[in-house]
Amino acid sequence: MTEPKPELLDAGRRAKAAAALLAPLPRQTRDDALRAMADALGEQSEAILAANARDVQRAEGNGTDAGIVDRLTLTEDRIAAMAQGLRDVAALPDPLGVVVRGSTLPNGLELRQLTVPLGVLAMIYEARPNVTVDAAGLAVKSGNAVLLRGSSSARDSNAALVSVLSQAATKAGLPDDAIQLAPGESHDDVTALLRLRGLVDVAIPRGGAALIQRVVTDAQVPTIETGVGNCHVYVDAAADLDMAEAITINAKCHRPSVCNAAETLLVHADVADAFLPRILRALAAQGVSVHGDARTRSYDGTVQEATDVDWETEYLGLEIAVGVVDSLDDAVAHIRRWGSGHTEAIVTADLAASRAFVAGLDSAAVMINASTRFTDGGEFGFGAEIGISTQKLHARGPMGLPELTTTTYVVTGAGHVR
Amino acid sequence: MTEPKPELLDAGRRAKAAAALLAPLPRQTRDDALRAMADALGEQSEAILAANARDVQRAEGNGTDAGIVDRLTLTEDRIAAMAQGLRDVAALPDPLGVVVRGSTLPNGLELRQLTVPLGVLAMIYEARPNVTVDAAGLAVKSGNAVLLRGSSSARDSNAALVSVLSQAATKAGLPDDAIQLAPGESHDDVTALLRLRGLVDVAIPRGGAALIQRVVTDAQVPTIETGVGNCHVYVDAAADLDMAEAITINAKCHRPSVCNAAETLLVHADVADAFLPRILRALAAQGVSVHGDARTRSYDGTVQEATDVDWETEYLGLEIAVGVVDSLDDAVAHIRRWGSGHTEAIVTADLAASRAFVAGLDSAAVMINASTRFTDGGEFGFGAEIGISTQKLHARGPMGLPELTTTTYVVTGAGHVR
Repeated sequence: MTEPKPELLDAGRRAKAAAALLAPLPRQTRDDALRAMADALGEQSEAILAANARDVQRAEGNGTDAGIVDRLTLTEDRIAAMAQGLRDVAALPDPLGVVVRGSTLPNGLELRQLTVPLGVLAMIYEARPNVTVDAAGLAVKSGNAVLLRGSSSARDSNAALVSVLSQAATKAGLPDDAIQLAPGESHDDVTALLRLRGLVDVAIPRGGAALIQRVVTDAQVPTIETGVGNCHVYVDAAADLDMAEAITINAKCHRPSVCNAAETLLVHADVADAFLPRILRALAAQGVSVHGDARTRSYDGTVQEATDVDWETEYLGLEIAVGVVDSLDDAVAHIRRWGSGHTEAIVTADLAASRAFVAGLDSAAVMINASTRFTDGGEFGFGAEIGISTQKLHARGPMGLPELTTTTYVVTGAGHVR
Repeated sequence: MTEPKPELLDAGRRAKAAAALLAPLPRQTRDDALRAMADALGEQSEAILAANARDVQRAEGNGTDAGIVDRLTLTEDRIAAMAQGLRDVAALPDPLGVVVRGSTLPNGLELRQLTVPLGVLAMIYEARPNVTVDAAGLAVKSGNAVLLRGSSSARDSNAALVSVLSQAATKAGLPDDAIQLAPGESHDDVTALLRLRGLVDVAIPRGGAALIQRVVTDAQVPTIETGVGNCHVYVDAAADLDMAEAITINAKCHRPSVCNAAETLLVHADVADAFLPRILRALAAQGVSVHGDARTRSYDGTVQEATDVDWETEYLGLEIAVGVVDSLDDAVAHIRRWGSGHTEAIVTADLAASRAFVAGLDSAAVMINASTRFTDGGEFGFGAEIGISTQKLHARGPMGLPELTTTTYVVTGAGHVR
């Protein structure tokens, strides 16, 4: 058992106190704070960029991969985009006070189930400092206090951002300590944060599979798992093959590093002759490295052999596993066995096949004749996204503002007793 | 790390396979199975009663408390009531396939968020064997497979019930293994069950605070905490004192052993003179033992002194803590500090006070001029209840059938790519 350090316990207690003051604030105050936070980012961009430059210099000194250094790097434009994100969130509908269920009971009691804030969120995330601003903004909009735990590679940037955001929020009428960095740098400090029962209401990890696994194993507070995606495209016997090619290439290549990119292509045997040669050529033209089963390799001797590791891997790059299946049921069974429950797409003109695919799977999203890349809070019209849940409790798929709320029942009587 | 025994792993795998077959079954099949299960309980009551008699004999031999033995004991009437419960569940609306959100996106994609089963439930509960039947029935209705882990004191009863229910369900068209006892008897077996990631989708403990705490600490699968209730009645300065007395007595005495019974009474100082003498008399007349703060004790020298332990204790019996507060804000602060977030009641004729009480608290339910005892799935009109959640993720307050579902997004396009 990791005991929380006094400064972490103190941060948790202050966050809880802030949450109690935040919850009843009207929408106007929260939205004003978001706009003040956006303004402050612009006004204090110089200090933020100076802090970020220290992180970037340290990362380069450590020989960090250029792609990661790029994601870590802030510019005036990137800061302006983060500020605009806060203004966009301010303009979204209020997720609080929504009556999600209500009725008058036979005895006359009036039952109302209302959305209210979760309380204190703990966000645990990796390199990109824009998550700090996104998470703070969504927390404020939804009336939650937040403890932010970014990666140590972005620590100076995150400290500068939180300092700017927190001061602006307080000046605009939010309670002190609504937006805080979680103190501590070590693995044990994260574990202690995940065990702050009674102070942290929900922990939300955002990052790679290793981070998610660690959080789930260590946490004693409720957790929402996000963002691990081994997504599949299944080309049915009744597929339009032009559509199938366009969807496969889009799902794999449009942005290979994200969780809604496709990692495996399954092709019905009836269209393998017609589809596999052309899709293998198209994938090669995009620079995608293919791992195929025996039938796939019979169309192209240069394709590498797919192993079980390929079926379960989230490549997050220009690689794909390709297999031939004898039926839709076999495709469903493959996805159930190897998938991560994120997003699967079927390409078919057959209505019964599309229905069977939906009914047979157990994933957060199923696309019918559309790319897996559409599983996204922005694409779904949510206006904001805190992550994509791949668990089943509370939230599944893209999480917007409603997923950062819980509910309370308010029951009004006139002296009712049982 | 506790490794699961082969028989537990096998049960989990069979439950997962059953869940995949259960999910697409139409309502008719699930409801037919529930009615067949009800019939089978009646037809095989003799075998069930014989198994129960062994549990009862063992409990009596161990010197178990008579109240617990009573809760363990089955009779023809109690079996008939359990069977009726299954028929009632069959008659409830189908919680599956409900479109909870849907729209056509600007690009023409059709977005539908549908309710689907959670998958595999693990229920961990204490003495009463009727929970076995309730949980199996709600699982079948909601299309979930279930692993049942009752207390060892009811093991023969539970084995007999699950055997009867499972055979009847299979005969009526449900997959094998949809309803199973979780194998193993020890603490370590429960821990292993709670760590079956990838096989168990949700663990739901039902029982006392120690059980809940153990489950939350040990679990690596998502968990819903239920049923710990330190509920408060606050008598406001503007309360009707007859109403306040009726609600206090009902909340404390109607059924003191349950989680929605009141454990603390807070009285506004302005009405302490008028209310405390009469409520202390009324509580005494009901045999309720009172722990009071200094001001409360000034009205009755026989009242025991309340300590911090009293403010935080869920007595679950004829005991109550009583305190005087100087303001509604002080009442709210007391409840936030000591409460468990279950249910709090205010008695007041003042609309602003009722609104401030609701806005200030952070509990699953707030009663205005009504007894805390109304926080109940049956009273709320849900028709069934799997427990009362005191956590904030997924479900809060009484959990009915909708809380045993998750959702999936089905997105239909015409070759859409990004």
